[in-house]
Amino acid sequence: MELLVVGSVAFDGIETPFGKVERTLGGAATHFSLAASYFAPVQLVGVVGEDFEEKHARILRKRGVDLEGLERTPGKTFFWAGKYGRNPNERTTLATELNVFAGFRPRLPERYRESRFVFLANIDPTLQLSVLDQVRRTPKVTALDTMNYWIERTPAELRRTLRRVDILIINDEEARQLTGEQNLVFAAAAIFKMGPKALVIKRGENGATLMTGQFIFSIPGFPLKRVKDPTGAGDSFAGGFMGWLAKAGKADTGSLRRAMVYGSVMGSFAVEEFGVARVARLRAREIADRARRFERLTRFEL
Amino acid sequence: MELLVVGSVAFDGIETPFGKVERTLGGAATHFSLAASYFAPVQLVGVVGEDFEEKHARILRKRGVDLEGLERTPGKTFFWAGKYGRNPNERTTLATELNVFAGFRPRLPERYRESRFVFLANIDPTLQLSVLDQVRRTPKVTALDTMNYWIERTPAELRRTLRRVDILIINDEEARQLTGEQNLVFAAAAIFKMGPKALVIKRGENGATLMTGQFIFSIPGFPLKRVKDPTGAGDSFAGGFMGWLAKAGKADTGSLRRAMVYGSVMGSFAVEEFGVARVARLRAREIADRARRFERLTRFEL
Repeated sequence: MELLVVGSVAFDGIETPFGKVERTLGGAATHFSLAASYFAPVQLVGVVGEDFEEKHARILRKRGVDLEGLERTPGKTFFWAGKYGRNPNERTTLATELNVFAGFRPRLPERYRESRFVFLANIDPTLQLSVLDQVRRTPKVTALDTMNYWIERTPAELRRTLRRVDILIINDEEARQLTGEQNLVFAAAAIFKMGPKALVIKRGENGATLMTGQFIFSIPGFPLKRVKDPTGAGDSFAGGFMGWLAKAGKADTGSLRRAMVYGSVMGSFAVEEFGVARVARLRAREIADRARRFERLTRFEL
Repeated sequence: MELLVVGSVAFDGIETPFGKVERTLGGAATHFSLAASYFAPVQLVGVVGEDFEEKHARILRKRGVDLEGLERTPGKTFFWAGKYGRNPNERTTLATELNVFAGFRPRLPERYRESRFVFLANIDPTLQLSVLDQVRRTPKVTALDTMNYWIERTPAELRRTLRRVDILIINDEEARQLTGEQNLVFAAAAIFKMGPKALVIKRGENGATLMTGQFIFSIPGFPLKRVKDPTGAGDSFAGGFMGWLAKAGKADTGSLRRAMVYGSVMGSFAVEEFGVARVARLRAREIADRARRFERLTRFEL
């Protein structure tokens, strides 16, 4: 089934202990779309400037991503630059130039309005809500990502949007900040009261946890020899996760668990190269192989 | 099979957001022994002072722990005091009074010298080595815990001891510090060159990972509603882990994976109450239940 994503398309400048790139295709919606494209047809809503060239569009189009919703406006594309230390969890933002993204008002092409699976990447909660208002029927699954900036500055707007969302996908610190609960079991309970029926906690190299009122599922991080660039890992996780649900066409217990595995698979690939390099050119067999490796990583018989 | 442990027996003063205890039975060998006692007969080598009363010994004896190797000498028992913040990973040491522990020279009772499973809790690596020298036959499995203090101050002695150890059980930061490798896959490879054939990385609430030359196994942390006191979690993990191996009588792939589960089970119980309160009075059924919960927490079908 079609999977709609709204979020940033950007150029990133990235420096890690393993190298440096001045300007590479990035943004939450980009990482999400590429990861999800291996599982379901993806419709992207975003905005880029005049510096967004055909070669950039081609990276997405090659993976079958529908770009009718990618608006092109006068000005420059959103630019972000950051630097990672030896510890990939510590990153310093060097530049955030919103450019055309500052005036972004998501507009869904007519076709997109039938989408049954929707991912609202980390943007202003008011814009996230406007996307839900444009979708014709209540989607089967709506998931949302957010960050400390919106939790602090637009708490009321975020709460209003959360009421219409099924799954919240955030990291552990954000879950604590949003709820004021240090313990994640209590944080999840508080989030269920805000609307979402499920909480996915991203923990970077420590894996991810899915909590619902019925069950908890945890998957460890994949032990990688090569972590070149952590940028986009969380969005690639979300792409694999939502992509799998859209492919399954449902969000029952078994599908949710598998979605966590494929989310982890895509997140683990994302960090192996700079930018979208690794996720843009995966083979189905590599994805299946890594999923089976997750199985071997976690299997035990009592 | 018999499981020998050498390490500290102590009194702990502990303060957490959930309460405060002035002086409770603690120490690595204590936590280890109690956790391991549910799986195998445990022989304890340690030292206590005159303030160690019959009621303290009874806690261990009730669980069948063999105390012939627990030396009693004039003076006071090792005392440690610490305080935890809202984040259970952040702890401040308020007092470390070595007392009789300062002159500790492990002496194995004749009976203990036949032990086939040996755990060297976190003490001076020279003392850890002296224990191995007193064991008559090469044990089936020897495991060792250590900490930043010994990694920094007695690196040569630690290396000498590690050469005779099968499994190193430490946390992620210690693995990085010991090897100078930020990436844990490379850290493990470096550790295998030092002697151990397996590395167990304890990650607190993020679970634990076992690495060998043949396979990697990861288990997530158990989602707990109640984390009252993190003291002794790592030693309880080690107790469940080594206890299971001693029970199995071997350390093949299946046993190692199961040992990781039972280590995680005991570590998760340990933090639910202050000191040894929870682990000292568990029922076999509670342990089996939680192991099955770990199964449900991690199971998926591709």
